[in-house]
Amino acid sequence: MTKIAVVGTGVIGNGWIARMLAQGYDVVATDPAEGAEERMRRAVDHAWPHVEALGLAEGASKDRLTFEADLSEAVKDADFIQENVPEIEELKQTVLKNIDQHAKPDALIGSSTSGIMPSELQANLDHPERVVVAHPFHPVYILPLVEVVPGKQTTKEFVQKAKDFYEGINMSVLIVRHEIEGHIADRLLEAIWRESLHIVNEGIATTEEVDKAFTHGAGLRYAQYGPFLTFHLAGGEGGMRHMLKQFGPALKKPWTKLEAPELTDELYEKVVSGCEEQSSGMTMSELDQNRNEFLIKLYDLVQEYWPQETTKTNV
Amino acid sequence: MTKIAVVGTGVIGNGWIARMLAQGYDVVATDPAEGAEERMRRAVDHAWPHVEALGLAEGASKDRLTFEADLSEAVKDADFIQENVPEIEELKQTVLKNIDQHAKPDALIGSSTSGIMPSELQANLDHPERVVVAHPFHPVYILPLVEVVPGKQTTKEFVQKAKDFYEGINMSVLIVRHEIEGHIADRLLEAIWRESLHIVNEGIATTEEVDKAFTHGAGLRYAQYGPFLTFHLAGGEGGMRHMLKQFGPALKKPWTKLEAPELTDELYEKVVSGCEEQSSGMTMSELDQNRNEFLIKLYDLVQEYWPQETTKTNV
Repeated sequence: MTKIAVVGTGVIGNGWIARMLAQGYDVVATDPAEGAEERMRRAVDHAWPHVEALGLAEGASKDRLTFEADLSEAVKDADFIQENVPEIEELKQTVLKNIDQHAKPDALIGSSTSGIMPSELQANLDHPERVVVAHPFHPVYILPLVEVVPGKQTTKEFVQKAKDFYEGINMSVLIVRHEIEGHIADRLLEAIWRESLHIVNEGIATTEEVDKAFTHGAGLRYAQYGPFLTFHLAGGEGGMRHMLKQFGPALKKPWTKLEAPELTDELYEKVVSGCEEQSSGMTMSELDQNRNEFLIKLYDLVQEYWPQETTKTNV
Repeated sequence: MTKIAVVGTGVIGNGWIARMLAQGYDVVATDPAEGAEERMRRAVDHAWPHVEALGLAEGASKDRLTFEADLSEAVKDADFIQENVPEIEELKQTVLKNIDQHAKPDALIGSSTSGIMPSELQANLDHPERVVVAHPFHPVYILPLVEVVPGKQTTKEFVQKAKDFYEGINMSVLIVRHEIEGHIADRLLEAIWRESLHIVNEGIATTEEVDKAFTHGAGLRYAQYGPFLTFHLAGGEGGMRHMLKQFGPALKKPWTKLEAPELTDELYEKVVSGCEEQSSGMTMSELDQNRNEFLIKLYDLVQEYWPQETTKTNV
């Protein structure tokens, strides 16, 4: 049985703990902050009805969680260690150095960093080959995605181990091909976030209006199809091939504060063939049908869960 | 009974037609393209089972759709006209001029433009006061959002008329306070789109991987809470107030190709108070509970509808 240690028990660390306990693991957690154990146990209690609703593994129990104030003690017998300390590069490097020195040399180490590149994190370790970024999404005990990013010194063997481990706790693993600040998802989220701040800053809309502009339109679509398949579908029968011809010129327009890449022939081909490949096995009409059935059920579901509108319009 | 004319029967025009017919209106459509009528009727047939699933208004029927090749004939008796010709400013201006001359002077005109400002569209009309942008989302017959943007010459009376009309066809109306290219939603979508293109262009990920990075994590959250409430919740008990302190510095980091606005005290206050106001009536814990219940049901639903994965990982 794999033994797990979780280092750092903030929102993300506690989310991992709930997921791992629910999957039937023993978890040892450590965090130097005062009151950390109590907050952690409260967070796990809070998450528990939700992981129960998702389905517990056999033998899963909150009683299989222990707190150990001393990091070296917490990690020494672990086969797998998830690091979740605050997003400060020097702090993460120090803590990882500490983990590296006290853990078994073949224990896998995953860092939850949302933006730092794994090569930076593993640079000064004795056993850098077993470090990956493993970036989850809040709430970790519900959302399936984890971005696994190997650094320059990570070996294929440990990437495979990481993939197997995270899939084993019911996650959807996305191996990131090349490390970059913010990995993949946070680059998209940061673009939305920055543009949203510009819109509020310029008085175009309130935060609530920006949110509504998302949740009542495109946000509904994004639970199912991402930015590429969404546009592939908006192109009608011609798909992305038609879409890029029609909306390519908009990349030159001042529609966001973000500079667009040049739509070269090479990029055009990458995007078109990518969309065609990822929708292979389904015709445009089947994709369309699939989306409509989903959206109707989602729309029915989400209406109960949207927050109440508070903003008065200016009409 | 309000008479509706729809000018331009592409993907968006046909989406409007299906929605309006389903809500029990008579619709006259016009489009100069060869074969337009046949394509329109096929599109309405395709949409019909979905609008039926959403629920038809009394008397709603596909038989209440007529096609009229001559624009002046199509609009002359209409109380409400929706324009959906291709996204070329000069073309839209010409068509709107034509509509303006042949429609009743008090007929409301909505333009589906995704990016052009209404003041540009109404500039040379005899009755500019009745023109608004009314920007919907594909598929128009399912997604509820419509961004209504008044131009400089639009009167409050016509904004109110537009709001009443679109709410009457079961839409969620977002009045945009100040016109800007791309209105609100398309600025966010364009930011995601441009960043996605950068990621594919730089070989960080395939289109499928970018899509997965969205749909299996943040995309699930966005059906319910937009960018602001999502971050408000990620801040734990401290909400956005804590979040901005912790992640404000990330605005300086190279996490996207998009330049961020300066996080001034004024912007800080706008964002924090906006989030607090829009979640008023619910504690952080209630918001959190609400999100978890929704996500679990959504996750259960969406798994049936996600496209099959085709990309081989490089491990």
